[in-house]
Amino acid sequence: MSVRLIDSLATTEPLADVFSDSSVLQAMLDFEVALARAEAELKIIPQSAARAIAGAARAEDYDAAALSRQTLRAGTPGIPLVKALRKKVRQQDAEAADFVHWGATSQDIADTALVLLLKKAAVILDADLARLQNALLALVAKHKKTVMVGRTLLQSGPPITFGLKAAGWLGSIRRGRARLKQSISEALVLQFGGASGTLAALGDGGIEVGESVARKLELTFPDGPWHTHRDRLAAVVCACGILAGSLGKMARDISLLMQSELAEVGEPGGPDRGGSSTMPQKRNPIASAITLAAASRVPGLTSAFLSQMRQEHERAVGGWQAEWPTVSAVIQAAGVAIASMAETAEGLTVDAARMKENLDASKGMVFAEKAALLLGSKIGRESAHELLKRATDPKQLRGRTLSQALVEMPELRDHLSREALTNLEDPEDYLGSAQEFTSRLSGSATRKTHRRRGK
Amino acid sequence: MSVRLIDSLATTEPLADVFSDSSVLQAMLDFEVALARAEAELKIIPQSAARAIAGAARAEDYDAAALSRQTLRAGTPGIPLVKALRKKVRQQDAEAADFVHWGATSQDIADTALVLLLKKAAVILDADLARLQNALLALVAKHKKTVMVGRTLLQSGPPITFGLKAAGWLGSIRRGRARLKQSISEALVLQFGGASGTLAALGDGGIEVGESVARKLELTFPDGPWHTHRDRLAAVVCACGILAGSLGKMARDISLLMQSELAEVGEPGGPDRGGSSTMPQKRNPIASAITLAAASRVPGLTSAFLSQMRQEHERAVGGWQAEWPTVSAVIQAAGVAIASMAETAEGLTVDAARMKENLDASKGMVFAEKAALLLGSKIGRESAHELLKRATDPKQLRGRTLSQALVEMPELRDHLSREALTNLEDPEDYLGSAQEFTSRLSGSATRKTHRRRGK
Amino acid sequence: MSVRLIDSLATTEPLADVFSDSSVLQAMLDFEVALARAEAELKIIPQSAARAIAGAARAEDYDAAALSRQTLRAGTPGIPLVKALRKKVRQQDAEAADFVHWGATSQDIADTALVLLLKKAAVILDADLARLQNALLALVAKHKKTVMVGRTLLQSGPPITFGLKAAGWLGSIRRGRARLKQSISEALVLQFGGASGTLAALGDGGIEVGESVARKLELTFPDGPWHTHRDRLAAVVCACGILAGSLGKMARDISLLMQSELAEVGEPGGPDRGGSSTMPQKRNPIASAITLAAASRVPGLTSAFLSQMRQEHERAVGGWQAEWPTVSAVIQAAGVAIASMAETAEGLTVDAARMKENLDASKGMVFAEKAALLLGSKIGRESAHELLKRATDPKQLRGRTLSQALVEMPELRDHLSREALTNLEDPEDYLGSAQEFTSRLSGSATRKTHRRRGK
Amino acid sequence: MSVRLIDSLATTEPLADVFSDSSVLQAMLDFEVALARAEAELKIIPQSAARAIAGAARAEDYDAAALSRQTLRAGTPGIPLVKALRKKVRQQDAEAADFVHWGATSQDIADTALVLLLKKAAVILDADLARLQNALLALVAKHKKTVMVGRTLLQSGPPITFGLKAAGWLGSIRRGRARLKQSISEALVLQFGGASGTLAALGDGGIEVGESVARKLELTFPDGPWHTHRDRLAAVVCACGILAGSLGKMARDISLLMQSELAEVGEPGGPDRGGSSTMPQKRNPIASAITLAAASRVPGLTSAFLSQMRQEHERAVGGWQAEWPTVSAVIQAAGVAIASMAETAEGLTVDAARMKENLDASKGMVFAEKAALLLGSKIGRESAHELLKRATDPKQLRGRTLSQALVEMPELRDHLSREALTNLEDPEDYLGSAQEFTSRLSGSATRKTHRRRGK
Repeated sequence: MSVRLIDSLATTEPLADVFSDSSVLQAMLDFEVALARAEAELKIIPQSAARAIAGAARAEDYDAAALSRQTLRAGTPGIPLVKALRKKVRQQDAEAADFVHWGATSQDIADTALVLLLKKAAVILDADLARLQNALLALVAKHKKTVMVGRTLLQSGPPITFGLKAAGWLGSIRRGRARLKQSISEALVLQFGGASGTLAALGDGGIEVGESVARKLELTFPDGPWHTHRDRLAAVVCACGILAGSLGKMARDISLLMQSELAEVGEPGGPDRGGSSTMPQKRNPIASAITLAAASRVPGLTSAFLSQMRQEHERAVGGWQAEWPTVSAVIQAAGVAIASMAETAEGLTVDAARMKENLDASKGMVFAEKAALLLGSKIGRESAHELLKRATDPKQLRGRTLSQALVEMPELRDHLSREALTNLEDPEDYLGSAQEFTSRLSGSATRKTHRRRGK
Repeated sequence: MSVRLIDSLATTEPLADVFSDSSVLQAMLDFEVALARAEAELKIIPQSAARAIAGAARAEDYDAAALSRQTLRAGTPGIPLVKALRKKVRQQDAEAADFVHWGATSQDIADTALVLLLKKAAVILDADLARLQNALLALVAKHKKTVMVGRTLLQSGPPITFGLKAAGWLGSIRRGRARLKQSISEALVLQFGGASGTLAALGDGGIEVGESVARKLELTFPDGPWHTHRDRLAAVVCACGILAGSLGKMARDISLLMQSELAEVGEPGGPDRGGSSTMPQKRNPIASAITLAAASRVPGLTSAFLSQMRQEHERAVGGWQAEWPTVSAVIQAAGVAIASMAETAEGLTVDAARMKENLDASKGMVFAEKAALLLGSKIGRESAHELLKRATDPKQLRGRTLSQALVEMPELRDHLSREALTNLEDPEDYLGSAQEFTSRLSGSATRKTHRRRGK
Repeated sequence: MSVRLIDSLATTEPLADVFSDSSVLQAMLDFEVALARAEAELKIIPQSAARAIAGAARAEDYDAAALSRQTLRAGTPGIPLVKALRKKVRQQDAEAADFVHWGATSQDIADTALVLLLKKAAVILDADLARLQNALLALVAKHKKTVMVGRTLLQSGPPITFGLKAAGWLGSIRRGRARLKQSISEALVLQFGGASGTLAALGDGGIEVGESVARKLELTFPDGPWHTHRDRLAAVVCACGILAGSLGKMARDISLLMQSELAEVGEPGGPDRGGSSTMPQKRNPIASAITLAAASRVPGLTSAFLSQMRQEHERAVGGWQAEWPTVSAVIQAAGVAIASMAETAEGLTVDAARMKENLDASKGMVFAEKAALLLGSKIGRESAHELLKRATDPKQLRGRTLSQALVEMPELRDHLSREALTNLEDPEDYLGSAQEFTSRLSGSATRKTHRRRGK
Repeated sequence: MSVRLIDSLATTEPLADVFSDSSVLQAMLDFEVALARAEAELKIIPQSAARAIAGAARAEDYDAAALSRQTLRAGTPGIPLVKALRKKVRQQDAEAADFVHWGATSQDIADTALVLLLKKAAVILDADLARLQNALLALVAKHKKTVMVGRTLLQSGPPITFGLKAAGWLGSIRRGRARLKQSISEALVLQFGGASGTLAALGDGGIEVGESVARKLELTFPDGPWHTHRDRLAAVVCACGILAGSLGKMARDISLLMQSELAEVGEPGGPDRGGSSTMPQKRNPIASAITLAAASRVPGLTSAFLSQMRQEHERAVGGWQAEWPTVSAVIQAAGVAIASMAETAEGLTVDAARMKENLDASKGMVFAEKAALLLGSKIGRESAHELLKRATDPKQLRGRTLSQALVEMPELRDHLSREALTNLEDPEDYLGSAQEFTSRLSGSATRKTHRRRGK
């Protein structure tokens, strides 16, 4: 299934496929097949029925458009799906039709199908996250010593390295990946409760059936049905929400660094990327734009999920019915953001020379803190702060660098020699713990975090 | 285009059609045709070019799947669309290809297309709102005197009429419809600004072109381009959000009144509605469930829209790129809620007898306030309140009605005669201004509100 | 009442005062006084009772902390407030105590109080909006001809004027102010329905009482009680949400223009503004930061409001109980954003020379579209676009301006004379309709919009 | 500090205390003291300075209102706090003043303070969660065999036990508590990066200082500064959001079960709880209302947090400035919901007799599925489903129970004997795996889940 034009910036093809009609249908049918097989093994229904059901469970044999229409009438995809499956089974084995969906309720189908889709999606997300993580590791390694302006509140500040910046992205994306993995692994649970969540239609054999179904679908069998307890899904949605925030931060940084006036990095581009319909010179941050767009949509979608958790009694009126479009939108938004940033990290051009130029262009202003420290020990900290405030006034500087200006200030003559100011504007000399933070965020830190989570 | 299974509870077919590939494509092509015609009339491009462009602008001739894929690369649907259109035009008239998209920018296409889709959707929404309003007016008229339990914090209270309840729904839905209409009419503006929003490529003729394009598309020409000023769209989204809230309230009430224990109203049902896959006796509130599901999704989607309004400079990086999926989801969610409640209001069964039974089943408890007022004039209000609190204790009542219990309380003997309590439990006798509120909310009130908004 | 430290960036003192304990208390007491007076005039309660109630209705005589504690127990501020008021009245006039809160329900107090607070807040918001609008008008007028780089996707593009940029801000803020005014005026309605919304305790006199109470409080008397119909409040919240988005856009632009590398504008600053605790040279965009912070909070708060609109029956369980903190947070967030941008617009420094420098620094790149148009008429549009793409490649440019580079390209020799390129990099020569858009957005356009809304 | 009236339903006193001015102030001062002590120990600043700073760090000595006002000017609480602290230190030790805040930046103070407040709040939340969990365990144990109607889409269905319902609440709240604990433990990290996040002002000693400060404050020292990487805080906010959803579900169920028509459970009440200002008979679900109100606010607040994660460069403009009010509101909302449900679970009255009555009142309708199973084996499943659909039509039933009606249906005479139907309406006979699910959700399941998380 192709991506709809209206959603074309909001997903990737592999993820759109996960939530396509045929994939959704197949997931629902897979549940019915596993159920029938489990029940046949436990001699609850005839083996022949299970075979007939399995034989009728190919998504491509169903009319998805008709099912979709019927779902709007029935209020759940489970009812028309069971009807259609039963009809197809009956064509082969009239008796078997009666054993379709034995003991289950329609939400069991819908929820388990959603979980199976999540499982497929998780593989895609994690593969792209791995690519992204590796690409960031490479960027960190390559640019451990690439100095650049540090920027706070969009104003220039003391230098950092590009390696540290990339390591910061890496740190939060790695944490986000761990959260996503954990939440997914906790959410991959079978839904199986029957009408009221007691599996009463299966007498006292319900749990044995459920455990077998779960094994067949490679899902966990939960402590109890969760028709109106949606916290596990909520945790997945939230993990995507947090990750989207971290990816959005990376994209925000890249789009800012790509500003024409800064031009410190560039998205990989390619023949079909970043051009403009009107301006031949443009190199637009397209992957960043798509990531920022996704990241701006996910928080609202997260709240949409959370706000329907107050579900009534054993099965809700309007609660889970709201989830499919929300969960699929969240997963796809997170996915297009991950894929976009993976591609970006893999091909990012980093202009170390330009970074250095931009540092120099500040004329030493970004070392005002450093100067204040030097001076502070002589004339006191507040006096130094005040003096530097004056010294860095553009009218005062008149095009000179900070060190030149300071050298010429009469009130400093006694306190700061020309020699003392020699290294003032050397960025390598004012990086503090940048390297160590970078190492921890990218390397050894990983192991520690991992250990801590595992305790 | 059919509705996708994953979204099957989140839209209606007519609205899904509005946001289908062919509809989106045609809206973008319509912009290009109107632009070319306007420019040809003003002798900016050759008449032959406009003809060739118009001749190549049939959505069905384009490969939507390919365009969707290219959109993800380009970051905007406008660039691949223009490329494809130009190619098709060139096949007919090589020279004309150069005049495709003359003076416009890619966001001009995307935004104007969205506005054109809104225009189509608005017609559908308003028609269903009219149906809903008429059906509610009929319910109000029919049930002006149908008494029922009033319920606050889900506890029984003094009686109301079903007419008043329906008039309350009507009032807020009518106000919501007016807000939606106003916001839509303000949002139906052309987007036309060119690269930086100055229409510089058209010299000083840009506005004349724009006004002509707007006339051709039956849109308003705005005071200025709004590439990064999204308040008009936000107002439409918010109007949908508010309306969804009002519809959700109506659906909540109906689903509560349909509870087996209350059984006061019933959704219309039909052969394919409200059944259960397991429980033969079920009459589920499907339309209410779908409406509640939609209403629970829209607030988050609204915040998704609002949170990307902080757009950069002349055209944003990630802002409007987030809008298409959000706006289309909001419109469709509002639409499925409106359609569901319209169908429900038109076919709602109201069981007046059961409403009366439920009133009687309270054994007069819901008249405790009334009794307190009667008593208050004799023994003081707080004493009366305290006494009634005791009298309405189930242990005290022991199956009697409130009036029976009161008559037999010795401490009241001097204050309340049997006669004074005769009408205590007559609901018609304790409706206060219910009828007048009902009239105002449904009838005359309309005119007043209308007048006020028009001043 | 002072602003709490935890909220210190989220409000202004005047707005914090509106939602302070004493203000909230007084609003609730004002309702009770108006109710008593209306009922006394209509001879429903004794004149002496009304006098006693009015005499006991000074907020400063109440223990707000105790009331707050009791509210958490009672689930509504109305119940403890009435109890406390009754106690105080009784001290003066024992009989009068019985007539406190006659015929009203606790939500009548809470809702009407909220409406009265909105009325106070609206005056503050509108005054700051007027300041902001005037300041923007002045900026527009002063900078109609101040050229600067246009920026799309954070890349440099054809020139605009700062006047046009400010006019864009003005346009959306003016529209937002109109929406806020309209929504406020529609929301200033009395809440008065009694226990079940029928005013039954007042017999058939309820509406007359209500209309009198409304007049006394200078509110509108609505068509019916709105205990569970919250659309009017929702519209106010949404109007704040949209306005916050527009203000956030203005703040985003200003913070970007203030980047050290651009330095095109500056917030007014002042002795206590924009400094850093560590970096003496910093001029941080504080007002923009506060505005962006507010704008990023409001969308979520808006969805919090919208998502509790699905309220049950005649009075809800958990619905309106969620509103006070949300509404007060939204109003205060909008208010601090408006005030911050008003202060900013009034004192914004605009460095026209720097804007021109930044234009020049692009070395003509931003005129690539213009060059493509010139060339397109000679060699065809796509060839021109391709050629310019090559010409604007930094490696090709080697420090020359675009026009210099073009003049020296052999393939253009026959098509473009040196003369034809003379004005290529003159920004005044490529402003298109900027002036006309600016005029419409700031001046005449206003009148038109106004007229349209008034029809 | 007392709770403000406007927020009185949105917090508890202990949590309001955590976010009170004095607590916020003290947390900021605690950071400065720990910093000074660490630096003195490492001989970076004089011991005497550390002593002077510690001596000046009592929250009660500061003018919170003034600091709050200055914060709005400075854009961060750190700057005025440092100024005030320095002033106070100078009064005692002029030289020491210079060493206040040595090497740190203002966001280091604000963020670490927030983390310290979270730590305090977490203790409160967890204690109430433990109370809630224990109370639910007791309810589960007591009502393992208390049968009641199962309800899906608000319609009656096959029976469940109240124990199973409570175990379902318990399961999701227990999972939520585990998520909250984990997220809190990961978020309790020191913020310490200095101006650009490199700790450059401390040369290469920054990390040693940071590790010491962390130890003193009993926080973890993170891999790197997180000024613009807010995922750990986001995870806490999300964990609260999910938990609020689970609590809201419990409250929704309780408020529905407390409906006058069902009356199956009752909130504990007490002299000041659940009354009405007008209706003496009312027993309102106040704790549920407060919980639902909190649960309806948290999703929007969660999205407010997530949507400001896209923070710029090394320190953001408007990002973290938005967090304090959001985080404090989320924690307090979660807290008031937890406390309300803990109180409710501890005192919930469960009317087992009424539950049985309500089951009986369904006249066997809720056993239609069971009857269909019995019949299905005789006449086929679909025929049985159809037949039961007819049999359960109210017009058909005419007041008889389902088994009576079935016995008298001629078409069943050959298939179902009176004997076969004897147990049809015995709820104990149709509970399926309810007991086992209950055990797993409450008892053994815990251990398993625990083990799994720990792997």
